[in-house]
Amino acid sequence: MKENRSRILLENLYIVPMTGADNNIEQGYITVEGQFITRVEAGTPPDRAGFERIIDGRGQAALPGLVNAHTHAAMTLLRSYADDLPLMEWLETRIWPLEAKLIGEDVYWGTMLGIAEMIKSGTTAFADMYFFMDDTARAVEKTGIRACLSRGMIGVGPESEQALTESRELITRWDGQAEGRIQFWLGPHAPYTCPPDYLEKVLVLANELGVGIHIHLAETRSEFDDIMQQYGKTPTALLRDTGVFKYPVLAAHCVHLTDEDISILADHRVRVVHNPQSNMKLASGIARVPEMLAADITVALGTDGASSNNNLDMVEELRACALLHKVNSMNPQVIPAYQALEMATVNGARALGLEGEAGMLKPGMKADLILVDLDQLHYYPHHDIVAHLAYAGQSADVDTVIVDGRILMENRRLTTIDEQQVKAEVKKVAARLIE
Amino acid sequence: MKENRSRILLENLYIVPMTGADNNIEQGYITVEGQFITRVEAGTPPDRAGFERIIDGRGQAALPGLVNAHTHAAMTLLRSYADDLPLMEWLETRIWPLEAKLIGEDVYWGTMLGIAEMIKSGTTAFADMYFFMDDTARAVEKTGIRACLSRGMIGVGPESEQALTESRELITRWDGQAEGRIQFWLGPHAPYTCPPDYLEKVLVLANELGVGIHIHLAETRSEFDDIMQQYGKTPTALLRDTGVFKYPVLAAHCVHLTDEDISILADHRVRVVHNPQSNMKLASGIARVPEMLAADITVALGTDGASSNNNLDMVEELRACALLHKVNSMNPQVIPAYQALEMATVNGARALGLEGEAGMLKPGMKADLILVDLDQLHYYPHHDIVAHLAYAGQSADVDTVIVDGRILMENRRLTTIDEQQVKAEVKKVAARLIE
Repeated sequence: MKENRSRILLENLYIVPMTGADNNIEQGYITVEGQFITRVEAGTPPDRAGFERIIDGRGQAALPGLVNAHTHAAMTLLRSYADDLPLMEWLETRIWPLEAKLIGEDVYWGTMLGIAEMIKSGTTAFADMYFFMDDTARAVEKTGIRACLSRGMIGVGPESEQALTESRELITRWDGQAEGRIQFWLGPHAPYTCPPDYLEKVLVLANELGVGIHIHLAETRSEFDDIMQQYGKTPTALLRDTGVFKYPVLAAHCVHLTDEDISILADHRVRVVHNPQSNMKLASGIARVPEMLAADITVALGTDGASSNNNLDMVEELRACALLHKVNSMNPQVIPAYQALEMATVNGARALGLEGEAGMLKPGMKADLILVDLDQLHYYPHHDIVAHLAYAGQSADVDTVIVDGRILMENRRLTTIDEQQVKAEVKKVAARLIE
Repeated sequence: MKENRSRILLENLYIVPMTGADNNIEQGYITVEGQFITRVEAGTPPDRAGFERIIDGRGQAALPGLVNAHTHAAMTLLRSYADDLPLMEWLETRIWPLEAKLIGEDVYWGTMLGIAEMIKSGTTAFADMYFFMDDTARAVEKTGIRACLSRGMIGVGPESEQALTESRELITRWDGQAEGRIQFWLGPHAPYTCPPDYLEKVLVLANELGVGIHIHLAETRSEFDDIMQQYGKTPTALLRDTGVFKYPVLAAHCVHLTDEDISILADHRVRVVHNPQSNMKLASGIARVPEMLAADITVALGTDGASSNNNLDMVEELRACALLHKVNSMNPQVIPAYQALEMATVNGARALGLEGEAGMLKPGMKADLILVDLDQLHYYPHHDIVAHLAYAGQSADVDTVIVDGRILMENRRLTTIDEQQVKAEVKKVAARLIE
């Protein structure tokens, strides 16, 4: 992995540093040394000496890598295996039976496919919750992407204790590994699958190991209603009362919230991950994103798994977010272009606990950045690059991806992943799963 | 234009003919002779002799070309020039002042950009309403795409008579031209800009010239309210009572409809064009698409102009349609994958009066078809190609485009358009417009 990390100069770029809406640089350069960005400047570099790699970014925009703050990468294996079904029928008759057949090696290849797809669409970091997470971690280590992993824990049934033991082992083994690219958190699945007494055990572990918590929260109306009926409070209030929000929490979905719930999330600095396309496709509902943003909650974006999306494309996701909330609030000024990009970069990094480390192009930050080819027809004429990226661009326009100072894609060629091998292995796995 | 039309054999294809959800062919071939499809068959062709072109479609899906049933192609010139504004401020302070500066040559180059973008994203036919339509028609003629054009007519003010005269001339000059690829219709802009007495003049012309009518209908709440106040009936009822629906009508938007309006549209076989991304971005509202489909109305899809979208990408549009109505109706089974594709192909062709001529892959149909590269990562594994196309694919995966038997794109290279020239000309136009 170290071979292609060095001193890199990227020049002749349109730079969208995401440090503020007025900070774009029409023509500038970026220097990368080791894992870090060292300069982001207008004009031309004073000196080209000492760089192992000089990338001419003419006609390209540089921006921070996109952060997919909630996914199940290995579920690419189930992509388009089951669509257009009611949620429970989808899970019970299609998804779960196939998942029951998965082995660790399948998860490795499914994750490799997911990571390859994410790099190709400009994602430099992701948060994942699934099982066989040693295999997921191996894929992250090998490919060079950044990730915040968690082992999905179901708090009822015979395997609930096992999930705690395994999570402890996984965290010990992987948290901080791959030169710091891997964080390993706890992944209690959801309030409806993890009752309070189980969550308390999870919190003991969170306290002991000093890690954050990735959880699904208030995804569907029926979850909301069931928890209300069982506990006399909302799922959000239940998590607060159980003490979950004393720890750093990545709460996926948060579709069904009361005003009071929004205050709870804001007060406890819970990071919310909005998954617009998954919520639309599964008809889960429309999250109150403008209200959450107004309450100063960090709202990041995620694709969710590829079985409910059906891809891991963050450009689609940020566009869906920007458009959906305009029409839902009947206000065309809600989530303007820059804010949509912010959610996919700055907020994503914050959600993964990477504030100050990633999500912006700034000296001292980790070098997680992408170059986007602005010479495609749909960027003409060049009136407003930020609006172009939010409303007109495609993930296929991402040309170059750098993570932690290493080039993971250049001219759309992946440097750490053998695409043909991944496709061949995934085909084999899929054939066995549907036998 | 004739040089690249000949006898073409396309083989080793996954064929999605859109003649029925169960009619897909896992491995098959298509023959094209002159303007027409002559065979669509499973297996391998019995004979390869006599074909000037043999295209090996291994790893590709063939489907009918997408139909963009409502756009203003030249508005690519205004792409990302003004975003995130309230509708009237957007029109009055940004769009109209720039449009006032347009000359015919600008519209030609803006349309060339729009057509280039449409071909690259798999669109083989479009319906357009704008001005300087001689220049639009020239661009259609030159590029080889299929189009249904109309000159936007405003029925109030000094130019309303001029619009009738010009429309008559344009129809006489262009309807049926370019070997039948161009239809020219009447384009009264909308009920709120064309009062009944003006529409009556338009209908006299429609009757005399035997052409259809392309109109905006019930796009915004304020249009609905204003017409209700002024006429005591809905915009839809107003058009019916004026006699507009006695002619073939392409009604764009139809966002604000009563139950009665839906019956009116169904009874009069009005073809509706749903523009989900434009309606979302401008916060116009969510059209009652599932109800219209249930009433057996032909609902096609369109991108609207690139200034409110901000691209002309029909793959995005069909996905937005499929996802938006699921969440809006809280029913994940609404507009399943196949139906979304149907809206973008079969219904689009019907909407443009091309039923029986285009929109399906079938012997005797015009050869308007596209090949999509299924070897991209986001199509792996290959569980369900229709779901893949609707929920996972990208327009950048379109590899080959054939219209009227001519290859307009192959390996993503346009054959009738000089991309570099279009970009250069559009840059010049844009620079002058924003001076």
